[in-house]
Amino acid sequence: TFMGGLLSCLPCKDVGPLRPTTGCTRPDGKAWADVVVKIGGSACTKKATFETLNDVALSAICGQLATLPKEGFSLAVVHGAGSFGHQHAKEYGVSKGAEKAMALSERLREGFAKTRLSVTTLNKHVITALLKEGLPAVSMSPCPFVETSAKKLVGGRLSPSTVDGTRGLLGRGFVPVVHGDAVLDESQGVAILSGDVWMVELCRELGAKSAVFVTDVDGVFTKPPWESGAQL
Amino acid sequence: TFMGGLLSCLPCKDVGPLRPTTGCTRPDGKAWADVVVKIGGSACTKKATFETLNDVALSAICGQLATLPKEGFSLAVVHGAGSFGHQHAKEYGVSKGAEKAMALSERLREGFAKTRLSVTTLNKHVITALLKEGLPAVSMSPCPFVETSAKKLVGGRLSPSTVDGTRGLLGRGFVPVVHGDAVLDESQGVAILSGDVWMVELCRELGAKSAVFVTDVDGVFTKPPWESGAQL
Repeated sequence: TFMGGLLSCLPCKDVGPLRPTTGCTRPDGKAWADVVVKIGGSACTKKATFETLNDVALSAICGQLATLPKEGFSLAVVHGAGSFGHQHAKEYGVSKGAEKAMALSERLREGFAKTRLSVTTLNKHVITALLKEGLPAVSMSPCPFVETSAKKLVGGRLSPSTVDGTRGLLGRGFVPVVHGDAVLDESQGVAILSGDVWMVELCRELGAKSAVFVTDVDGVFTKPPWESGAQL
Repeated sequence: TFMGGLLSCLPCKDVGPLRPTTGCTRPDGKAWADVVVKIGGSACTKKATFETLNDVALSAICGQLATLPKEGFSLAVVHGAGSFGHQHAKEYGVSKGAEKAMALSERLREGFAKTRLSVTTLNKHVITALLKEGLPAVSMSPCPFVETSAKKLVGGRLSPSTVDGTRGLLGRGFVPVVHGDAVLDESQGVAILSGDVWMVELCRELGAKSAVFVTDVDGVFTKPPWESGAQL
């Protein structure tokens, strides 16, 4: 099997009811991305140890992803935070945010800044590993260009400019790499926008045929893993 | 003097004829950023040595910047690439781009990806140094959210969503930190969007009273340093 036991692969029709903002194919009729891959935080970091990369696993995953373009598939990558970001986010309550959007405590600001530095550090490791395998990987770092309101994407989906930017990278032959991030939130000041939300949105907007989840658990889920009742 | 001989400080009325997209002050009438600071690549990196930080200078600069909020000034920071990014960009011709926007050579893609990884690595160092001094610094990484056309910003200025994101960070008490970057270009595929362009645009859109340039050269310029005829 392609992902060496790390693979769960879902057809993209499962990932959401909304249609793409505009045509989800390139001018030549191909999908913007054939495959959207989520590298789980548990697969690329040592989740119990603060800010520690699992470089053996990350390198193996990137080596496998590098075979996709050679087989004619275009791909976009999303990764979680794992031990980069989660600790800070939890310690400082970044996901909960503030009571008033524009009145953040000094402590919450510190936590937000540290969380964002941590996830972008992991992103740099992922980009480095993908480049090493010859993939032209380009980081897309959401904050402050992508915002939420009460923890949901403003307008319920990615903005046209975000979709255009992602398609612009793919159309030029790059591999966009997005990460779960600490973002600005209209109602609670700050929030966490997870990699799983990006998976749903990118699959839809890029016309992807497959969503691949690389985790530290063997096997295939019965449903998208974020839905209740999903089983291995 | 504030910047220990590294300072050149210009009133922001000099930086461009266009008015801000919308009101350049906060609801309470204050500027979104009182000061926009450019940390030149020559000031924070060892420009002749590939990807080498000048950590002593960077730390000193950040220590001085940390005094601004204590004195009641809000600030935004822009930094150049220095020895992070310039070599790759030059070697691979990233600034020149491609003849057709969507037909990039494999080599140009590689150069773009490496340039972007390099400048975001420097950005991480700058954020780390600012956080160490207690400033809630948050990275704004332009690509692919900010695009150019024939090397100029699309529409001649920052998009409303980019301006809103920057103001959103400042309104919550963060210090936005933008870097010169490799970006997507509508006409030549890819291009470089320099930190100096960000200086002009942010001063205008944030209603800044001062633009501060931290370089490795002592003294004050007679004009904005990007204008012809500017002299020390």
